[in-house]
Amino acid sequence: MSDDVASLIGQTQAAYARSIDNGDLDAWPNFFVEQCIYKITSADNHSQGLEAGVVFANSRAMLLDRITSLREANVYERHTYRHFLGQPWIKSNDGARVTSETSFFVVRIMRDGTTDIFATGRYLDVYALQAEGAPKLVERIVVCDSSRFDTLLALPL
Amino acid sequence: MSDDVASLIGQTQAAYARSIDNGDLDAWPNFFVEQCIYKITSADNHSQGLEAGVVFANSRAMLLDRITSLREANVYERHTYRHFLGQPWIKSNDGARVTSETSFFVVRIMRDGTTDIFATGRYLDVYALQAEGAPKLVERIVVCDSSRFDTLLALPL
Amino acid sequence: MSDDVASLIGQTQAAYARSIDNGDLDAWPNFFVEQCIYKITSADNHSQGLEAGVVFANSRAMLLDRITSLREANVYERHTYRHFLGQPWIKSNDGARVTSETSFFVVRIMRDGTTDIFATGRYLDVYALQAEGAPKLVERIVVCDSSRFDTLLALPL
Repeated sequence: MSDDVASLIGQTQAAYARSIDNGDLDAWPNFFVEQCIYKITSADNHSQGLEAGVVFANSRAMLLDRITSLREANVYERHTYRHFLGQPWIKSNDGARVTSETSFFVVRIMRDGTTDIFATGRYLDVYALQAEGAPKLVERIVVCDSSRFDTLLALPL
Repeated sequence: MSDDVASLIGQTQAAYARSIDNGDLDAWPNFFVEQCIYKITSADNHSQGLEAGVVFANSRAMLLDRITSLREANVYERHTYRHFLGQPWIKSNDGARVTSETSFFVVRIMRDGTTDIFATGRYLDVYALQAEGAPKLVERIVVCDSSRFDTLLALPL
Repeated sequence: MSDDVASLIGQTQAAYARSIDNGDLDAWPNFFVEQCIYKITSADNHSQGLEAGVVFANSRAMLLDRITSLREANVYERHTYRHFLGQPWIKSNDGARVTSETSFFVVRIMRDGTTDIFATGRYLDVYALQAEGAPKLVERIVVCDSSRFDTLLALPL
């Protein structure tokens, strides 16, 4: 069962990453439940218990707004990401909710071909298991290892 | 079954990467069937439907030729790769052929120790399942995220 | 069974990496048996059969000493790592001992936010399976692809 859940969460996380990496941003908000938390913060702020994040949303509607803004700014024309994830560590699973921690590594590819490490860190996730279909994110706290965020922070992590 | 195939494809892809990373280039063509397609292209060219690739082979014999050339040029004395792969996404499986998409990330290590990101992208694979042994590649399209290819593009991706 | 062992080793390796990446260095020696080998070397030296490593320990007590030194030098205040591992390749398994080879990739994040590739290579591991709990390392040879080691080589790989 534990292995099954880890596998299910791993597949969901891979699909999430693929939607962003392959430019299908419209699919991104659908990985979340309607009343969700999405936050990007730094390891320093997170360990100090600081609530504020560089990016914060507390509903799927806010995630949709974000995608619309990105589209209007043509952000995803200017760069793409490629995500790599460690295997999810299942911290708890009560049959309805699963919490997990997963290392991530994101490479950014600019239009001119420049490729660099964009961000590394951990996803602290809470998933709601669904009667049918893939689990959905109730909460994703993206804890970046570095406190130096690129001003171009734009595509979702 | 789906999980089994994903696991089988994942193991095959890991063995493919290991043969290159550990310098066992002679083993590389054996991951393909005799009548195979191997192509390296860019995401831009691929999304525009352009057929030409930076590297193209349509038989295992051509892959063998390529290895011989690399050996004569002592290319693999000058740098090594280290591959990292996401989990394969199984797009179809009819029991004889499996198509999959897999993120890759390749680090290049030069003789002087310099280490950098060489390429990121997706493998678009078609495998023929074998009665015995590991699946073999009927087709591998290597879609690199960046359009800027290093002129040293040499070892297989 | 082979898949089960690969999964078990993969989980153990992920826990090892997580303890270092999340700053829980005290947990690190506990991944080893008391009479263990831990060595960091380069691919060149390893392929030439040279025994000397950049780092060498032949007991868990030496690993504990190393952690104490790092703590006194406040090394882990100055940088953090993020490990990414390929799937383990199980080379042998006699039911008591498992040998495996696993690609690794380590990103280093400095206090000022600078993020770079710190090391890539292979773990050549020997595990003792335990009656209860996770397998423990009898031997870990860390074979780095590059011969150029950072003088700051400090946190465990």
